[in-house]
Amino acid sequence: MKAEIISVGTELLLGQITNTNAQIISRELQKIGVDVYYHTSVGDNRERLMEVFHTAWNRSEAVILTGGLGPTQDDLTKETISEYLNLPLVLDESSLARIREFFEKRGREMPDNNLKQALLPEGSIAIPNDKGTAPGVLLEWDGRIVVMLPGPPFEMEPMLKAYVIPYISKKSSGVIFSRVLKFYGIGESTLEEKIKDLIESQTNPTIAPLAKMGEVTLRITAKACSIKEAMDMIAPVELKITERVGEYLYAYDDEKVEEIVARLLLRLNKTIAIAESCTGGLVSHKLTEVPGISKSLDRAIVSYSNRAKEELLFVKRETLEKYGAVSEQTALEMADGVRRSSETDLGLSITGIAGPEGGTAAKPVGLVYIAYSDASDCIVERHLFSGNRSEIKERAANAALHLLRKSLLK
Amino acid sequence: MKAEIISVGTELLLGQITNTNAQIISRELQKIGVDVYYHTSVGDNRERLMEVFHTAWNRSEAVILTGGLGPTQDDLTKETISEYLNLPLVLDESSLARIREFFEKRGREMPDNNLKQALLPEGSIAIPNDKGTAPGVLLEWDGRIVVMLPGPPFEMEPMLKAYVIPYISKKSSGVIFSRVLKFYGIGESTLEEKIKDLIESQTNPTIAPLAKMGEVTLRITAKACSIKEAMDMIAPVELKITERVGEYLYAYDDEKVEEIVARLLLRLNKTIAIAESCTGGLVSHKLTEVPGISKSLDRAIVSYSNRAKEELLFVKRETLEKYGAVSEQTALEMADGVRRSSETDLGLSITGIAGPEGGTAAKPVGLVYIAYSDASDCIVERHLFSGNRSEIKERAANAALHLLRKSLLK
Repeated sequence: MKAEIISVGTELLLGQITNTNAQIISRELQKIGVDVYYHTSVGDNRERLMEVFHTAWNRSEAVILTGGLGPTQDDLTKETISEYLNLPLVLDESSLARIREFFEKRGREMPDNNLKQALLPEGSIAIPNDKGTAPGVLLEWDGRIVVMLPGPPFEMEPMLKAYVIPYISKKSSGVIFSRVLKFYGIGESTLEEKIKDLIESQTNPTIAPLAKMGEVTLRITAKACSIKEAMDMIAPVELKITERVGEYLYAYDDEKVEEIVARLLLRLNKTIAIAESCTGGLVSHKLTEVPGISKSLDRAIVSYSNRAKEELLFVKRETLEKYGAVSEQTALEMADGVRRSSETDLGLSITGIAGPEGGTAAKPVGLVYIAYSDASDCIVERHLFSGNRSEIKERAANAALHLLRKSLLK
Repeated sequence: MKAEIISVGTELLLGQITNTNAQIISRELQKIGVDVYYHTSVGDNRERLMEVFHTAWNRSEAVILTGGLGPTQDDLTKETISEYLNLPLVLDESSLARIREFFEKRGREMPDNNLKQALLPEGSIAIPNDKGTAPGVLLEWDGRIVVMLPGPPFEMEPMLKAYVIPYISKKSSGVIFSRVLKFYGIGESTLEEKIKDLIESQTNPTIAPLAKMGEVTLRITAKACSIKEAMDMIAPVELKITERVGEYLYAYDDEKVEEIVARLLLRLNKTIAIAESCTGGLVSHKLTEVPGISKSLDRAIVSYSNRAKEELLFVKRETLEKYGAVSEQTALEMADGVRRSSETDLGLSITGIAGPEGGTAAKPVGLVYIAYSDASDCIVERHLFSGNRSEIKERAANAALHLLRKSLLK
């Protein structure tokens, strides 16, 4: 089945929000073997939305729209699509009841302008919205499927997964299945050179490289009748790749380094404490995105000031004075100090200069030291990252998590 | 000038990456008065890219493409567009020299497949890439502009800002200028009810509401000959809005609550220490995204374990035993404890249940206490947030920053 996604909202075209909906929907559709060939974003404008929908309706078997279902004046997705398909909008009593209930629960009167959210194109199925007031729309018409979902991702995503994907999955035949290999510590060009012959000789599955900040991924994609068959086609290709560049491989699919680290910590039953300076809590934030990490993570200390480094991490004043807060020695004492004072098995530390101020010729912006400490070993790494403050924090946090991962695997 | 953006890359259609490029480019084009009417994403496929480019070329005066400039087999943007415009690809010596230099600096040999990155459509201007190997392309042809930029945002963005925007800005007449008002503590429907008559009666400037997680924004957009004129048109509309709902207004444009808080802290010359539990370092991470905050932020303590709460924050064992780690009393003692032990002016704390495990009937997932403490006052707030672990962390961190903001404004 061929599908495409239309995101409606002038705020997208003005660059005020990122279009995460198209990504979420694509990922889910791909899993059930639906080919997504186009994403389009268009403003809150009747004519342009109609033009874009016309193109989509004539080349795709399923069109998923998001946005423009709100209570306000400029929300016109349902109105425009109904007009194009020549279907009247009719009141859906169960949707109206849900909207009233939404406001009652919050002890508020339903404003009049929310009424229009309960109007749906004739013949459509209402998709309940547990997080907001706009119901979704699922409609089969003229041998094709049109779906309308609200714009806010936290409303859209549960509706997509609970209703839309199971519905479309029944209509779809065959699967597209991808396996993504994630590498750390090797450049895109070098990686591709090493497996160029494989890329060129493959048609199904295909191999596609992709560079992200500080990592490189390879996507192996197979088309087959079943996921089992696709996986069987992917396995020998994956094996050939790992034979050549397996030493840099660290994860599969959308698994993040913090998830791998968390799993290793929990499996090895290791407790950890973290001391952060330039990353400002980002390592701890990433790690605490993983459910269950409280069994392993005892604490994190963001020691922004030198005083905090001395008081909480027992970094020696002489070390700070002689080598500075951004140094190999301080990083090591931070990792060691946080481990000892927390009485955890492991300590991890990061100290550096995120900028834009504070750099010198000897210690430029982007210089970061990362240290790992356990009862029998300690390791320190020196990095020089490029980018702005936010990028340097991100790269440093990832490097710290990778150091921890490598140490846990030893 | 009418423009549109085409993002090239199968990884977008598979949902493997978010399309942040379209957002960044839109935002920059809007500032110089260029109307962006469409975003399109298409895969690494010659025919579909050609079809999409054909549509764009016939309805827009400028087409900006990103992606597909890499060294690999499936990078075919330059090849496809050159073919469509009937222009040969020719070697650009200066680009080749830059690519060689890129590898030399890193002590590596240039792989052969990077050679094709130096081939540009005849008559085009090469845009230097300081962060990677793919030069960009700027081409005027048949009275229109076509721009091709690499896909990785950290390469694309500097090239866009340094070369593309100044170039297009010279060709563009008139401006579209937006002012965004950001509100906290009021729902989208309620806000819109209060200013419905203003929204309906306005055509230039227009007023458009938008809900994001935990906040609501209003965008006032004017079209005019100059930014000055647009600002003069926006000012009276903004005044009418703030007369009615000004008490909920907290920021303008893309300013984040952490930026406002950081500015207030620095202006009032206040030092702060933070104690986080369920947010796991996210409040500290957000605050340390702001340059210069090291003057105010002394430390943050992520006290995940009860032991850390006792040892580092001096929360009483009786409090933890009697009321639990997630309670008003513990939140207050954490805020007070971190302030006293750090000898800072202010303390801020967050404790709650981010889930998915750990909730009970009395203390469900999403329950969060936030506390503020200074020498003369302390405040605690109770929240019950919806969403998954990551959303609850995000909402709790924002609520904490808003509590701090309100306290600093008293």
